[in-house]
Amino acid sequence: MITWNNLDTLASYKELFNLEKVDLKEAMSGENGAERVKKYSIPMAEGLSYNFAAKQVDDKLLEALAKLAEEAQLTEKFEALYNGEVINTGEKRRVLHHLTRGQLGNAVEADGADKRDFYTEQQRKIAAFAEKVHAGEITNAAGEKFTTVVQIGIGGSDLGPRAMYLALENWAKKKGLFKMEAKFISNVDPDDAAAVLASIDVAHSVFILVSKSGTTLETLTNESFVKDALANAGLDPSKHMVAVTSETSPLAKSDDYLAAFFMDDYIGGRYSSTSAVGGAVLSLAFGPEVFAQFLDGAAAADKTAADKDIRKNPAMLDALIGVYERNVLGYPSTAVLPYSQALSRFPAHLQQLDMESNGKSVNRFGEPVEYVTGPLIFGEPGTNGQHSFYQLLHQGTDIVPLQFIGFRKNQMDTDVVIQGSTSQQKLCANVAAQIMAFACGKADDNRNKNFEGGRPSSIIIGDQLTPGALGALLAHFENKVMFQGFLWNVNSFDQEGVQLGKVLAKRVLAHETDGALKVYSDLLDI
Amino acid sequence: MITWNNLDTLASYKELFNLEKVDLKEAMSGENGAERVKKYSIPMAEGLSYNFAAKQVDDKLLEALAKLAEEAQLTEKFEALYNGEVINTGEKRRVLHHLTRGQLGNAVEADGADKRDFYTEQQRKIAAFAEKVHAGEITNAAGEKFTTVVQIGIGGSDLGPRAMYLALENWAKKKGLFKMEAKFISNVDPDDAAAVLASIDVAHSVFILVSKSGTTLETLTNESFVKDALANAGLDPSKHMVAVTSETSPLAKSDDYLAAFFMDDYIGGRYSSTSAVGGAVLSLAFGPEVFAQFLDGAAAADKTAADKDIRKNPAMLDALIGVYERNVLGYPSTAVLPYSQALSRFPAHLQQLDMESNGKSVNRFGEPVEYVTGPLIFGEPGTNGQHSFYQLLHQGTDIVPLQFIGFRKNQMDTDVVIQGSTSQQKLCANVAAQIMAFACGKADDNRNKNFEGGRPSSIIIGDQLTPGALGALLAHFENKVMFQGFLWNVNSFDQEGVQLGKVLAKRVLAHETDGALKVYSDLLDI
Repeated sequence: MITWNNLDTLASYKELFNLEKVDLKEAMSGENGAERVKKYSIPMAEGLSYNFAAKQVDDKLLEALAKLAEEAQLTEKFEALYNGEVINTGEKRRVLHHLTRGQLGNAVEADGADKRDFYTEQQRKIAAFAEKVHAGEITNAAGEKFTTVVQIGIGGSDLGPRAMYLALENWAKKKGLFKMEAKFISNVDPDDAAAVLASIDVAHSVFILVSKSGTTLETLTNESFVKDALANAGLDPSKHMVAVTSETSPLAKSDDYLAAFFMDDYIGGRYSSTSAVGGAVLSLAFGPEVFAQFLDGAAAADKTAADKDIRKNPAMLDALIGVYERNVLGYPSTAVLPYSQALSRFPAHLQQLDMESNGKSVNRFGEPVEYVTGPLIFGEPGTNGQHSFYQLLHQGTDIVPLQFIGFRKNQMDTDVVIQGSTSQQKLCANVAAQIMAFACGKADDNRNKNFEGGRPSSIIIGDQLTPGALGALLAHFENKVMFQGFLWNVNSFDQEGVQLGKVLAKRVLAHETDGALKVYSDLLDI
Repeated sequence: MITWNNLDTLASYKELFNLEKVDLKEAMSGENGAERVKKYSIPMAEGLSYNFAAKQVDDKLLEALAKLAEEAQLTEKFEALYNGEVINTGEKRRVLHHLTRGQLGNAVEADGADKRDFYTEQQRKIAAFAEKVHAGEITNAAGEKFTTVVQIGIGGSDLGPRAMYLALENWAKKKGLFKMEAKFISNVDPDDAAAVLASIDVAHSVFILVSKSGTTLETLTNESFVKDALANAGLDPSKHMVAVTSETSPLAKSDDYLAAFFMDDYIGGRYSSTSAVGGAVLSLAFGPEVFAQFLDGAAAADKTAADKDIRKNPAMLDALIGVYERNVLGYPSTAVLPYSQALSRFPAHLQQLDMESNGKSVNRFGEPVEYVTGPLIFGEPGTNGQHSFYQLLHQGTDIVPLQFIGFRKNQMDTDVVIQGSTSQQKLCANVAAQIMAFACGKADDNRNKNFEGGRPSSIIIGDQLTPGALGALLAHFENKVMFQGFLWNVNSFDQEGVQLGKVLAKRVLAHETDGALKVYSDLLDI
């Protein structure tokens, strides 16, 4: 029997405040520190590992976190979710993105279909379409092959797929698996679409319109932009566009599209990279086989997330430590720092995933909570960030927990030896050095050169950023955010906070405003 | 007589805590709100304006902030800075980036030269070089024109110039002023350089190596990477590279470069976009005339920053309000939200500018301060962010002050009318709507759909993002950060916090580690 309780009603949560805080500087020093790094590491899917030695935890705290996991029924709640219960209570919807990559539990029937079958059927349709495009069986009106794919979408239909594309672009090129270049149009700023259109050969481009409802204003506006460009080039837009949408949307059965691939209401935008939303563009760019590997990696991570033992469940442990940092230690933000240029937009995706899911002030019953929830998430790739905002992370007045990501090998094999080491070795040496600099600091009589230390971090280490590793990484964070939502007792799957702005923007465009809004509108010449 | 005092020793600072907090929701409602939006706006350089109506301020507080500005001697300190006093006390250096774009005060002599003359001389050298490249007078060995410029640099040698290039790329194309495509290599991750090199035609590319000291490891490593690629293509690297460095650096007089352009120790990396660091790449990409307009915009903003009256000095007022939010209201972060796709990397630049300058825990004398300093800065362009992290900004448990930026016109003229409005109108309607949604919220009996409001923001409004407007925008934030540094009594111009990581990374590469660092190094196969 699952009960949904607020975090501050749980005895095991209150107990966390009574435990002695770990002195990270001390814990990570000397041989003790070396032992910690060996011990506080757990395997993840696809050969990744989650190392939390530089977090402010010890065995006692881990025990307490395990109790919290149990009392909060994290495993049971995840089970309920993947077995198809209505976990998105606000919108009265199931939450089924895990089914796009595997079957963790019972068959889930909805809308008259087995949902796993439904998602795999879409994958098959996408794979067949992509293969025909690659084989030159689906072409433009002149019978020429498409060379570029352009995704038109915003938010979850943009950030996730874009980050995944960038993560695998160079890997695919190196492996000879690169099929088509992908571009993305998202912003309603007309310069976004205009710039992308100016950079491609529209006659050889296929466009993917992504909108679950078929009514997202930015996306429909950009679709028109693209259709105008195609028409101006003497091309028939319907021969250049596919739709990714829900079966009930106005786009689903339209002759305006070469094909339509379906998602549904059980997949939130920010959780849709493994659905048709990510599937169409990634299958076209890299081939369906690469997309399938990506899904396998995500499925493997989901499986570890179902483990009841927090020492075997990196997503759950990561979630628990994050809540401890946020609610007990009082740190208001987290930085995501991948030491991999390919993950340049991964932090932006996690920013949406996390902040849109758990940036809530009411629990799942609509009652205000009396504790802080989702933190602020930001980040840039290392080593770039080291020459930028790391100054504040090291010596600023606030402590920011850090999430590092690093790989032993780079994607493109090319490297150069300077001063006795390769660039890849320098990259890895830097991330190792940063963890220790943050944790232990360094005393200096010149206070300006003094490093306090005591700044916690964890690192996910992998061998190489492959499609499987990327899938596992993505699912790890999806599951972490889900577990944190369970702990905070919020609904991580709706986003009512985006509505008011939409309503007011419509009013501005209809010139139905007064007061301050009218003056702002005038200042902006609307 | 200037005295450098900690913020918490100032009577006018303590007074801020006694003033009644402004109820933003009430203040921005009805006709009162309309009056505020008209009244709380001050002109900036280049036709921009700074509107702070939706900040938690009123006339009384503004008066108190004016007193604080006076007691903290903000104007006098800025004067001392632009007149060449050693303001960067930690490194015992002058701070002269303002001189790269104008002469605000007395002539500044250093290193045996008038520094304004020195900087303009570099600009002239760069302009002459760029014009010769554009005219085909400086070519590759085969006598063919260069078509691409690649900047090799990291941190301040990357983020600012890159953000500025992206901000003007489409504008220049539209105006017929686009000369050469620019690319950037920054990360020590070998895949960064490899990917950029794979995307260009090296035979027709000119590379700019940017390193003040000539010793930045990432940059020298990437230079080798590039030289290898040139040599492998049968090209002479010295015919494809220029250096931007200090006169005393090993690169300055090397035959390895077509030319060397100089900066000096008085210009910090994050303040170097208006020096040769930004000048070389922007002059090559868009022509020296566009770069000159950019400098004029920055110079005009500097002039307004010298005004003693906070009602006529947007940078100073912005700084004061920011300190009020950080230290009195207790908000730990600020989001930068440009409604302009061209400013996609402007938040990343401001993140460095602000966090590296003021993320400090000791005052300029090396004594620990007992108040919080620089906030966390992050952001993405709107409307994209609306479909991502805005959920937390609207309904999360923490309040995040917001800095909007918007323009009446887009850069590329192309637009489309959907549902009775252009995309540009939709873009502007959204930013106006967001300001009001954040400020006033909206009550709803369903608490999940309730918006508390009371979330402060300001907006900088311009006509169009031109080179002049961009220069003014950049200088506004540079000066804001400088004034905040004065208020917090920190040295905004050094960055000791980046040193420890460098030292430890070297030790890892030399295999001179033990304890935890050794284990991390092993895990990462170094």
